[in-house]
Amino acid sequence: MAKEKKVEQITNMEVDFAQWYTDICRKAELVEYASVKGFTILRPYGYAIWENMQQIMDAEFKKTGHVNVAMPVLIPESLLKKEGELVNGFAPEVAWVTMGGSEELEERLAFRPTSETMFCDHWSRVLHSYRELPMLYNQWCSVIRWEKTTRPFLRSREFWWQEGHTLHETAEEAQAETEQQLNCYADFFEKVLAIPVVRGRKTDKEKFAGAEATYTVECMMKDRKALQGATSHYFGDKFSRAYDVTFTGRDNKLQYPFQTSWGSTTRMIGAVIMAHGDNNGLVLPPPIAPIQVIVLPVAQHKPGVLEAAAALRDRLTAAGLRVKMDDSDNSMGWKCAQYEMKGVPLRVELGPRDIEAGQCVLVRRNDGEKTAVALGELETAVKEQLEAVQRGLYEKAKKNLEEHTYAASSIEEAKTLQEQKGGFIKTMWCGDVACELKMKEQAGMSSRCMPLRQEKLGETCACCGKPAKTMIYWGIAY
Amino acid sequence: MAKEKKVEQITNMEVDFAQWYTDICRKAELVEYASVKGFTILRPYGYAIWENMQQIMDAEFKKTGHVNVAMPVLIPESLLKKEGELVNGFAPEVAWVTMGGSEELEERLAFRPTSETMFCDHWSRVLHSYRELPMLYNQWCSVIRWEKTTRPFLRSREFWWQEGHTLHETAEEAQAETEQQLNCYADFFEKVLAIPVVRGRKTDKEKFAGAEATYTVECMMKDRKALQGATSHYFGDKFSRAYDVTFTGRDNKLQYPFQTSWGSTTRMIGAVIMAHGDNNGLVLPPPIAPIQVIVLPVAQHKPGVLEAAAALRDRLTAAGLRVKMDDSDNSMGWKCAQYEMKGVPLRVELGPRDIEAGQCVLVRRNDGEKTAVALGELETAVKEQLEAVQRGLYEKAKKNLEEHTYAASSIEEAKTLQEQKGGFIKTMWCGDVACELKMKEQAGMSSRCMPLRQEKLGETCACCGKPAKTMIYWGIAY
Repeated sequence: MAKEKKVEQITNMEVDFAQWYTDICRKAELVEYASVKGFTILRPYGYAIWENMQQIMDAEFKKTGHVNVAMPVLIPESLLKKEGELVNGFAPEVAWVTMGGSEELEERLAFRPTSETMFCDHWSRVLHSYRELPMLYNQWCSVIRWEKTTRPFLRSREFWWQEGHTLHETAEEAQAETEQQLNCYADFFEKVLAIPVVRGRKTDKEKFAGAEATYTVECMMKDRKALQGATSHYFGDKFSRAYDVTFTGRDNKLQYPFQTSWGSTTRMIGAVIMAHGDNNGLVLPPPIAPIQVIVLPVAQHKPGVLEAAAALRDRLTAAGLRVKMDDSDNSMGWKCAQYEMKGVPLRVELGPRDIEAGQCVLVRRNDGEKTAVALGELETAVKEQLEAVQRGLYEKAKKNLEEHTYAASSIEEAKTLQEQKGGFIKTMWCGDVACELKMKEQAGMSSRCMPLRQEKLGETCACCGKPAKTMIYWGIAY
Repeated sequence: MAKEKKVEQITNMEVDFAQWYTDICRKAELVEYASVKGFTILRPYGYAIWENMQQIMDAEFKKTGHVNVAMPVLIPESLLKKEGELVNGFAPEVAWVTMGGSEELEERLAFRPTSETMFCDHWSRVLHSYRELPMLYNQWCSVIRWEKTTRPFLRSREFWWQEGHTLHETAEEAQAETEQQLNCYADFFEKVLAIPVVRGRKTDKEKFAGAEATYTVECMMKDRKALQGATSHYFGDKFSRAYDVTFTGRDNKLQYPFQTSWGSTTRMIGAVIMAHGDNNGLVLPPPIAPIQVIVLPVAQHKPGVLEAAAALRDRLTAAGLRVKMDDSDNSMGWKCAQYEMKGVPLRVELGPRDIEAGQCVLVRRNDGEKTAVALGELETAVKEQLEAVQRGLYEKAKKNLEEHTYAASSIEEAKTLQEQKGGFIKTMWCGDVACELKMKEQAGMSSRCMPLRQEKLGETCACCGKPAKTMIYWGIAY
C-alpha cells in the first residue's frame, strides 16, 4: 500500500500574495528553478498549458494569413546596432556570445532579446516587389533579457514567446495589422483565458524601443495590480530605412515598406494564476487546461466502481475532452486537494450509490458548485459545466476589474485611491512626460495605457491642471 | 498584367550533386543564409515542412506517454563538465556566453549543444521515489554546435531538433525505451518520409559522447552517400552517477536510475531533398507537404473555369487535404514548373474541355503519371493518387538502397566497390577500432552501423583476417 504523499498547504493570498503565487508555481508543478540564476524550467504540467495556448493562438494567426519561420538566435552586434533606439532600449539586458569553440569571435553575438533586426536583415535580401507584400511572419522561440530580479513566468532571464513581424506596402495596412493583432490578443485573453482586458495605447515613455506606437492589453490581477498582457507595435518605415529594406512599388520606384511586430509570452501563465487562482491553488480556464475533467471513483474497491468510472472517462474522451481518471490508492481527500491544486476545472465523482441511482456528481473547481447528473446526459452536462466554469471565471475577473477602477482628478486623490482601494486609477492627462514622472514619484504608479475607449472625465490634466488631451489609466504593475 | 517571374533552372544532379542540392534549398525557398556565418533561416515553406514533421512525431511520442518540457538554453560550464566524455565530445563546438548586459559573468555559460546535463541536474532535484519513474521527457528547441563547414539542413551552427530524455527504474526498461524510440524513428522515415532505413548500432568510435550504446537509422541518398537519420542512446546509470540523480527504490534503498536520450533534427529535410528530389526540384512525400494538391485552372479567362476550379479546391479542402489554387496571371508553363520546384505531390488541371467532359486531370509529381478522373470521384481519386505518390517514392528509394548495397571480403574489394558503384559496403568485422580506422584511411569510408538484422557473410574480418564478431555497414557519409 502506497504511503500517501502530502498535498502541501500553500500560503494564503490574503497573507502574502507574492508567496502564494510562488507556492502555486512550485506546488502545481508548473515550473522549477534552474541551476542558472534567473532561469526557469517549464515542467510538463506548465509546458502543457503553454502548448494549449500556442495551439489556439497559432491557429488564429494562420487564419489571418500568417506563416511561421525560424530566425537565427544570435545577432551580430553591428546588425543590432543599426537602429539606435532599439539597441539603447535592449543593450543593458543582452547576453553576449563571445566564443565559438575555443576561438574568440571577431564580433560578439547577441542572444536575441527580440528579432526585429533579424527579420529586417532577411527582408533586405529577399524582398523585391510590392507583389510579395504583405509578408506576415511569426516565430515561436525563447529570448533572453538579462533582468536583475526575476519571478517565475513574470520576469525571467529566458522566456518563451511568439513574435510576429510583418511588412506592408502602405502605412494604413501596417496600422490595420497592428490593430488586428491587438484585437487578436484581446480576444485570446477574454475568450480563452477568461481575463477581461483594457485595450489601449502606451505613452511614449512606456512604448517599445524604436516603435512609433505601442498598443497593449492590460489586465488586473486579484491583488489589484496591473499586468501588461501582450503588445502590438507599429514601426512606420523607421526600421526599413535603418536596415535598407526596399521594394519596387506599383509606380516602379523603390520604396520603404511599413512594419509591425507583436508579441505574447509565457507570462500569460502568470496572468492566469493571479487572475483566477485561490487559496486551494491554481484555477485553469477549460480551453487551456491540460486535464479538463478529472474522474474520481469513490470507494473504488467495491465491485463495479472502477469499471463504471473507466467507462465514464472513455465516453468523455470520445467526446473530445482531455480527461484523466485517478484510481491510485491515495485517499479521496488527497485526490480532491491534489486536482484542486492543479486547477482542473471539473471533477467527476462516481461511487456505488451513484451507480445505483444512475448518476454521477460534477464539481466545479472555480466555485465548488456540485451537480448530480443522470449518466445518460453525461457529455452534455459536462460540457455545460465547463462552459459555466469559463463564464464564472470571466465574470468574477470582470467584476474585480470594474469594481477596482476609479476616477481621480488630482495626484493626491489618485494616490489615496491606490493606497486605500488599489486597482486602476483613471485620470485626464495633458500628454506631458513630466506629469507621468510626477505621478510615478508621488503616487507610485506608472501609466498603463490610454484606453482606445475614451471617457471624458474632465477638462484638465490631473497632474498639472493644464488642458487635458486624453484619458489615461494608472496602476502598480508587474 | 504581371511580368512573369522566371522559374530559374537548377543544376543537374548528375553534373554537380552538391550544387543541385543547394539550388533546391534556395529555389524552393526552404532556407536562406543569415548574416551570421554558418547560420540559416528557415523560410515559411521550409518551416511548414518542419511543422508537419513535428506534428506527426510529437503525436507519436505522446502516444507512448512522453511529455514536453522546456529547459534553459544556457548551461553553466561547471555543470557541463561533470560528465567527462560528454564534455570532451562537445567542448570544441560550444558557443559561450560570457557577458550578461554590461557585466562579465563569473562563470561562462554554454549555449546547449545537447541537454543531458540540464535534464540530469533537474532530476537530481525533483526525483524522489521509484513511483515517479519512468520520467519520459522531450523538448523541441534549437541547439548550437560551432561547426567549421556548414551546409543547409545537413550541418548548420544552429539547428532545430527534438531531444527526448528519459529516466527508468531498471536497465531493461531503459534499453526497451532506446529500442522503442529507434523503431519510432525508423517508422517515421519509412512510413512518413518514404525513406527506407537500415537500423543498427554504432561502433564505439561513432557513438554519442558518453553513451553506453548508440542506435541509428541510416539512409541512402540519390548520390549513394549515407545519411545518419536519427539516433537513440542508452546511457546506463553513468550520468545518474555523475549528476547524483537518485531515487528510493522498492527495497527502500537509494538507487541510481537508468537513462536514455534520442534525437532527430531539421536534417531530415535534407534527407527528403536528397532521397526524392530530381532535376525539376523538390519532391515531397504527401504527409509532410505544406501543399499536397495544387489546383491549376486551364484557360482560366474562359467563363466558368475559375468557379469550377475553386469548387474543386473547396471539395478537396473539405476532404481534409492541404490544397491551394493558383489563379494568378502567370502562364501555365510557369505554374507547372513552379509547383514542381516546390515538390507539390499532386497537380490537378481543369479546363473548359474537362468541364464539358465532367472530368479533371491529376498529375503525379514523382513520375509525371497523368490520370483523367470523373469529377464525381474526385476525393477518392486524389487520395489514391497521393497514396500512389507515397508508395512510388518509397519503392524507388528502396530500390536505390537495395541495388547499391554490396558485400565485400577485403578492404581492397570494399574500396573498389565504393569507387565504382557507391553505396553501402557490408563486410564482416572483428570489432577492433584499428580496423575501422584502416577502412577509413584506405577506402575513405566510415562505419555506418552494425545492422540489427545481421547476415553471416563469412568468418573473418575484412580488414585484418581475424575472427569476425559482427557484420558491419560502411559508407561515405554526410
